[in-house]
Formats: sequence, structure tokens, C-alpha cells
Amino acid sequence: MIVALAGGVGGARLAVGLAAVLPPQRLTVVVNTGDDFEHLGLSICPDLDTVMYTLAGLNNPALGWGRADETWSFMETLQALGGETWFRLGDRDLAVHVLRTAALARGERLSDITRTLTQRFGIAHAVVPMSDDRVRTVVLTNEGELAFQDYFVRRRCAPAVSGFRFEGAEDAEMPQALRAIVDGDVEAVVVCPSNPFVSIAPMLAVPAIREWLERRTFPVVAVSPIVGGDAVKGPAAKMMRELGVDASASGVARHYGSLVDAWVIDERDASEARAIAALGKRVRVTDTLMTDTAKSAALAEAVLEVAGEASRG
Amino acid sequence: MIVALAGGVGGARLAVGLAAVLPPQRLTVVVNTGDDFEHLGLSICPDLDTVMYTLAGLNNPALGWGRADETWSFMETLQALGGETWFRLGDRDLAVHVLRTAALARGERLSDITRTLTQRFGIAHAVVPMSDDRVRTVVLTNEGELAFQDYFVRRRCAPAVSGFRFEGAEDAEMPQALRAIVDGDVEAVVVCPSNPFVSIAPMLAVPAIREWLERRTFPVVAVSPIVGGDAVKGPAAKMMRELGVDASASGVARHYGSLVDAWVIDERDASEARAIAALGKRVRVTDTLMTDTAKSAALAEAVLEVAGEASRG
Repeated sequence: MIVALAGGVGGARLAVGLAAVLPPQRLTVVVNTGDDFEHLGLSICPDLDTVMYTLAGLNNPALGWGRADETWSFMETLQALGGETWFRLGDRDLAVHVLRTAALARGERLSDITRTLTQRFGIAHAVVPMSDDRVRTVVLTNEGELAFQDYFVRRRCAPAVSGFRFEGAEDAEMPQALRAIVDGDVEAVVVCPSNPFVSIAPMLAVPAIREWLERRTFPVVAVSPIVGGDAVKGPAAKMMRELGVDASASGVARHYGSLVDAWVIDERDASEARAIAALGKRVRVTDTLMTDTAKSAALAEAVLEVAGEASRG
Repeated sequence: MIVALAGGVGGARLAVGLAAVLPPQRLTVVVNTGDDFEHLGLSICPDLDTVMYTLAGLNNPALGWGRADETWSFMETLQALGGETWFRLGDRDLAVHVLRTAALARGERLSDITRTLTQRFGIAHAVVPMSDDRVRTVVLTNEGELAFQDYFVRRRCAPAVSGFRFEGAEDAEMPQALRAIVDGDVEAVVVCPSNPFVSIAPMLAVPAIREWLERRTFPVVAVSPIVGGDAVKGPAAKMMRELGVDASASGVARHYGSLVDAWVIDERDASEARAIAALGKRVRVTDTLMTDTAKSAALAEAVLEVAGEASRG
């Protein structure tokens, strides 16, 4: 079993590639829920939905969130009625939020709800939230503490970050479905090119996930989310600069340290390979920009090759 | 002040007529909330919404519920995901349900939420729910007890009714906004041509409303919801037959008894006038079919004339 740790767009695109080259019984995608939040009374899971819509081929590649075939009547009416419109909810997207909110209110587990939704979207591979328990990323900024979506969407990542808290993470457990997988035969863990601070770190803050990775007998392979000194999408590079971390592939490798055994970096960062190798890591240089499914699949093949090499030592 | 008691379509259409001929400070529309329910985690108030959309000119006259300019992406997606689709929720309509549900969850009163919504829809006249407390109509049928929307929408009024319960009504109070009005100078109460059993009866089951009407010093004028032996819309006549009540204008007059002082009946039922007069009631015969706003306004004028005559004895 390959276990991929995924956040939003970058994670979703590599998940598509892995799903294209691995059969359902060989892939589990674990998704960040630290950016989940409650809005207008609805329980919204942005990363889960991005992964779900992307795997289903329904995602909006231009926006990087939501569905391509979306309509906006709800939002137009909400605006006319003076409701909050800073977080945009499409009419089709709403069906997922309403169904999930109602199911959570009935006491169903997020992992069970996610399995039902992904099956109905025709997704054959397993998508599992990092926890069924509530974890909420809080961004420490020069304007004070901000709930993640306040920082990310309402404030468009403008405040300078100084750190992060993952509320609830220390008491959060793995979902049962994930526990069964990590107790089985894991070939490798893939850290997707997602934001290290707000997509991957919340997962590592769940004690059972962190401890499972720390005592691993399989390799962890990561794809650098930094290409040519910047994030492909999102505020990762801006955050690194604000935190005084070198916004480069080798900077990310130093940030993850012993949690990652092998790196896949972009050909634009070939000059970084030596610095990463000097950390004792295996390095593969390739084209990591997943602009279509074929490129996602090619990157997934490269990641799996590196994982295989790392396993054999 | 004229106080109109309204259910769904018939009530909404007479409310439009009254609003056309009365200034805002002379009309309050009190709306049934017995058919409110919780669905997919949303608090839905069908009669309040029908009155609100109709007063705002946004209603769908063909359907008799919802908005004319509606889109259905949410419902299509809900169906694709296996959600419940027996109660249809349009994308624009959803904005009202989501805003109201969130406001109720914050502890706001339904009457305050309704005032905010009607103002934002540009409605100048007051629309007040019969109570801020939860009242739920239960229909006693040959298939057992059914929640109102289960009977009305899911079962399309097919089961034969034997009675009704209005859960919570005995402990429900008037909203403060309505209390202030009924304690003031009321010229007349208008019972709209709404279903006597499931639109008007839930309001009369609220003790403060029933007692206010019983000790009244103003006339109560009703418009018959039965025209030519049938309801203009909805199951009123079917219910009357199932309950062994004569499905006629005079049958309705006998049903309301001393709660109504004067009747406005349709010209198709002119032959009923004598039977109603024999009950000691004032009767006006006119065209009561409100097929457009002008006809709603003409009926409202007739109702107000009858109220004036009844006031003068």
C-alpha cells in the first residue's frame, strides 16, 4: 500500500497521478482537515473536497477549488440578502456541504461520510481524512491569531505569519479506516507537493500519524512544493520567507529533516540536488509541474521509482 | 391596523392585495409556522417563504412555491449523490434556508430573522410568524401520524386524514412584535383563503392568538378557501370530505363558527349566501379568484369594505 499525504491542489494533482498508475487496493490518500471550518452553519472541508473533485475529474482547474460545472445562484442571492460572501460556495458544491453537515449532525464519522461521497462520485481509490476528530489550523500573524480560512481566503494570505497552532491535534486520533491501513503492509508514504506548514504539518501534528512515521520501516518520499524559489500555488514560499526559512527545494528538505528519506525536485531546481544529497537524502530531479493528468501520472511513476530505490536501500 | 392570518398560496395572494391597498403601518401579515420543518439540517418555513416571495414579486405562480427565477444545480447534485430529493430546494431558495438556519442556531428569533429577510427583499409591510416557538403540525391519517411535509409533499396528500395535532402549540407564545400589535388598535382580522385545518388552525392553536380573537372588539372577516365545492389549491376540500365536513363555503363557515363574523364567498357559490347568513354572519359575494395582483387588490378592497360594515354593526 502507498499512502499519500495530501493538502489541496498540489496534493490533489499528485493523487490523480498515483490513482492513474496504482490500483485501488494499493493507494490511500490521507487528506488534511486542519483547514476545515464552519461557515453559514455548514461544515466545510476544503482540502477533502479539492481532492475529491479532482479525483472525480469535476474540479475547476482555473480556480483551484470547487467544481468546473458550477453555478452561482445561491451566492448571488446570499449577496442580495446581505449574507457573508467572502467564502464562495457554488450551487453544486453546496450539495456536498449540506449532505456532510447533516451527516455529521447525525453523529456519522467524517471518514465514513467521505467514503460514501467518494464512492458516489465514482472514485475507486480510498480518500481518508487525517482524523475524524476536530483539528483547526490557527495562523499566528502580525495581525494576531487568525482562523485558517480567515487568513487564507478572507485576508488572501496578506498578514505575515510567525507560526501555527493546530487546535485539537494533540487529542485527535487516526480514523479507524486509516489505522487498519497503517497497521498493514505499507510500501511507502508519499508527501505530496502541498504546503508544508498548513497542509502537511496539521497531519504530522496528529500524534498517531507522527508516531507511525517516526517508527517507520518504509521510506517517505516527498515532492518539493517549491519550484524555482516559489510555490506553484498558494502561500508556501511567502510563509517560508516570513518564517526565515530559505524558500527553496533544499530549504523545504531541511524543514522536513528526518521525516523525509527521499526527494523529488523540479528540473528547474537541479542545482539544489547536491545540497539535499548532502543531508543524506536520495534525490530525483524531474519535471514536477502537473499541468495535465499525463504529467501527474509521470510524476507519480517517478515518485514510486524513487520509493522503490529507497526501499532497497 | 388590519391583521391578516395567512398560510401559503391563498394567504400570500390576499396579502399582496391587502399590501396594494393598505400602507405599511396599517397591515400586519401573520403567517402559519406549523408546516415548518427541519430537512437536510436546514430550518425550512414554507408558508413564511411563500408569503415573502409573493409579496416581493419573486414567487413562482406555476409551482405555488419557491421562486420564479430559480435554478436547480444543488438539487441535481443532491440527486446524483443519493440525497433526499422529495422536497425540492432551489439554489436561490437555499440562500434563505441557510441564512435562517444559521441565525436560528445563533439564537436569533424567527420573527427578527423574518423582519430582516423581508426588509432585504424590499417588502414594506410587516410579516410575522405566528410564534417564535416551535409548533409542528402532525396529520392523523389512515396510515398513522405523519409530519406535515411527509403528508403534504412526500405523500402528496394521498392518505385520508382523520385529525390533526399541533405539537408545541399549547406552550407557544406570540412573538413580541405581534403582541405589541394585538395590544394596539386593531380594526379587523382577515382570515385569508388558506386551508382551515393546516394553515389557520395551527395559528388558532396558539393560546395567546386564540384568546385574543375570542375576546375581540373588532370583526373577523374570512374569505372562503372553498370555491365551487373545491379548494382553489391544496387539499382543503379533500380533507373536509374525509373529515365528514360539507366541502362548501357554508361548510367552512360552520367549521369556523363564532371565530368569524363576516364572510366573503365566491360568486360561483352565491347560492350558499343564504345558509351562511342563517348562521348570523354578514356575507359578501364577489369574484375571489386572485389570478393577478389587480384581482387580489379588488378582493382586498371587498374584504376591507365588509370589515368596515361589520365594525359599524
